[in-house]
Amino acid sequence: MADEVKLYGAGGSPFVCRVKIALKMKEIKYENIEEDMSNKSADLLKYNPVHKKVPVLVHNGNPIAESLVIVEYIDDVWKGVPILPQNAYEKAVARFWAKFVDDKCMPAAFKVFGSNGDKQVIAEACEQLQMLENELKVKGTKFFGGDNINLVDIAADFIAYWLGIIEEATEIKFFTKDKFPKLTEWADEFVKCEVVKETLPPRGNMVAFFKKRFGKA
Amino acid sequence: MADEVKLYGAGGSPFVCRVKIALKMKEIKYENIEEDMSNKSADLLKYNPVHKKVPVLVHNGNPIAESLVIVEYIDDVWKGVPILPQNAYEKAVARFWAKFVDDKCMPAAFKVFGSNGDKQVIAEACEQLQMLENELKVKGTKFFGGDNINLVDIAADFIAYWLGIIEEATEIKFFTKDKFPKLTEWADEFVKCEVVKETLPPRGNMVAFFKKRFGKA
Repeated sequence: MADEVKLYGAGGSPFVCRVKIALKMKEIKYENIEEDMSNKSADLLKYNPVHKKVPVLVHNGNPIAESLVIVEYIDDVWKGVPILPQNAYEKAVARFWAKFVDDKCMPAAFKVFGSNGDKQVIAEACEQLQMLENELKVKGTKFFGGDNINLVDIAADFIAYWLGIIEEATEIKFFTKDKFPKLTEWADEFVKCEVVKETLPPRGNMVAFFKKRFGKA
Repeated sequence: MADEVKLYGAGGSPFVCRVKIALKMKEIKYENIEEDMSNKSADLLKYNPVHKKVPVLVHNGNPIAESLVIVEYIDDVWKGVPILPQNAYEKAVARFWAKFVDDKCMPAAFKVFGSNGDKQVIAEACEQLQMLENELKVKGTKFFGGDNINLVDIAADFIAYWLGIIEEATEIKFFTKDKFPKLTEWADEFVKCEVVKETLPPRGNMVAFFKKRFGKA
């Protein structure tokens, strides 16, 4: 029996995009179900009653929520290009940084735009991004995964693509080449990857969306 | 060469306790290094420069931070009693709930004591705990892991042990048998497990600690 794979998502979400990149890396065909987040479907509420959020992956009837949990599941189930390192220690390090992006970088960056660019809040966001900058510098590789993207790169899709878009929409800029030479270079390389660029939502739409969201349109 | 395993911890931490339970499940001998969190050691700052927190596991010189990342690492590296389910879907479900405990339950419960028992804040914490109650009810098993504890039970050690202790220290009670029959029964069973009870910090000390912390002593 062929696998039945459905993804409940919303085009503009960096969390959904993580799952799409992982599915593309494994060359998995899936049905993409676009949710209206202001009017959630009965299916979404049934499949993710705890958080009521996208993404949800439904594989042969089994629902999974939480983007990083889904990405690890995809790597567990389907062979092909690996997403997590095979070595146990490197795997732990990758999980550590993916969690760091979720717990520290993304909230800190969002807070900048929510605070309308408060200097102290920008300093705090830069402190978190600096940790990623340092990690890339120490590794000396093109991606967090080395020559190819891995879980950490995927987790950081927000930094690579969305951050610059929201900066453009709000005209608040702090993720700059002079402050973050390695991380901005990484971002350029990441969005150029075949599996990534086909997956990202169109830039123009996103800028318009965030202009509206932050009252700039 | 024998494995060199060191754990940098602090006796009263539920996060450190997660790692100790996992090490005990795998029957791993380790050196326990007690950190003074008001005067952190140079080693801790070197091994966890990002968060500067315990627990940190150092295995043959390789440091790993973040308690759930460490527990997964321990399960990856050492055979014996499994901590995560073997089946990919069950593994994803376990990761989902462990993350839920970290992201939702623990912050919501701590907020109750920080707010000195504000009714709305208690209602929000109960809403999160109810999710765990429902999950146990649906499973119909003794533990989240079934007949034996797994990643989710370990992640929820705070709910099983610390929550009642802080309730006693602060005289704010909401985790009750009538509201949470399954979850309180689970808590009783969890703290009785051989690998758990030998690991938990002494109750009296903890009550005194939290009385002081919340200004009740």
